[in-house]
Amino acid sequence: MPVKNARTADFLRSAYGGESMAHMRYLLWGEIAEKEGFKNIARLFEAISYAERVHASNHFHEIGGETSDATVAAGGVFGVGKTVDNLQGAINGELHEVEQMYPVYLNTARFQNETGAERSFHFALEAEKIHAKLFKDAQNAAKQGKDIELKAVYICPVCGHTVLDEAPDKCPICGASKEMFKAF
Amino acid sequence: MPVKNARTADFLRSAYGGESMAHMRYLLWGEIAEKEGFKNIARLFEAISYAERVHASNHFHEIGGETSDATVAAGGVFGVGKTVDNLQGAINGELHEVEQMYPVYLNTARFQNETGAERSFHFALEAEKIHAKLFKDAQNAAKQGKDIELKAVYICPVCGHTVLDEAPDKCPICGASKEMFKAF
Ligand SMILES: [Fe+2]
Ligand SMILES: [Fe+2]
Ligand SMILES: [Fe+2]
Ligand SMILES: [Fe+2]
Ligand SMILES: [Fe+2]
Ligand SMILES: [Fe+2]
Repeated sequence: MPVKNARTADFLRSAYGGESMAHMRYLLWGEIAEKEGFKNIARLFEAISYAERVHASNHFHEIGGETSDATVAAGGVFGVGKTVDNLQGAINGELHEVEQMYPVYLNTARFQNETGAERSFHFALEAEKIHAKLFKDAQNAAKQGKDIELKAVYICPVCGHTVLDEAPDKCPICGASKEMFKAF
Repeated sequence: MPVKNARTADFLRSAYGGESMAHMRYLLWGEIAEKEGFKNIARLFEAISYAERVHASNHFHEIGGETSDATVAAGGVFGVGKTVDNLQGAINGELHEVEQMYPVYLNTARFQNETGAERSFHFALEAEKIHAKLFKDAQNAAKQGKDIELKAVYICPVCGHTVLDEAPDKCPICGASKEMFKAF
């Protein structure tokens, strides 16, 4: 069912714009990491890019409704640097979402009784906390000129939950089963 | 080299936001077309989604520079309907880019002697004209409950030029060779 309140609808559109731009810049920064020889950091960018797609998809479906167009105001991070610098951009973006953006969006959705939007914002907020940490670890390695150690990255296709090495039996955020996780 | 003028930089960021959102919604509308049994329309959405990635990538690299964040104002199209309706959203978005957005951005880049941005906007404008037409043809089929006939869609990875059935010997927009085209 489409969102009812205009303010929550605005926040869903902003979040969709922000997630779509994050999805894209992680693809592009992943290409740069690959060229610099950081194969595992490149894979981390690719995996997290997919998690942002999951968030964008959730927000888009919560907006729902008939075809309409809107001017969207959304936060983006720019810059084409070395991987160490691009990871700083990634950390900044994730921390902004964790500390400012999603807490306010989530609080507003609760206040306006928008349960679908509330779930979608909650899913994203929980994943972004993990993304900030993973990008920080990657930056610590890259600062020493090293790639990260990485067996696999697993992404929940329902909520974007992001786990290293092995998928959990059940997604701790949304309850999706182990088999549903997408491996990178 | 990063863009020098603030107004062209704004337009590059807006175009990046718009292309990132278009890339994402075509992926999502492609999933819906697939579920409705329109396999070729789904493939068209996927291919054109990749063309929008090429545009977003070009704009992002023209912005260049150091890590920075910005609030981006960009046009988006929303709605989760049947494929016939989603295609109307796609047509509206492409026509807005062809008739309003990219002509103004291109004119401004020329006026400000931003040759990199000019090329990036020119590449996108030329591809969007073709996208509008392809989505219109797809909608005409879907209105009659039919899928489109489609051998393959070829996308130029340099400029996003979009061609059905067979890649040209040389991209007519940017000069890329036949072998470089990505097939869907
Ligand atoms: Fe996200
Ligand atoms: Fe994230
Ligand atoms: Fe999950
Ligand atoms: Fe485009
Ligand atoms: Fe397009
Ligand atoms: Fe081309």
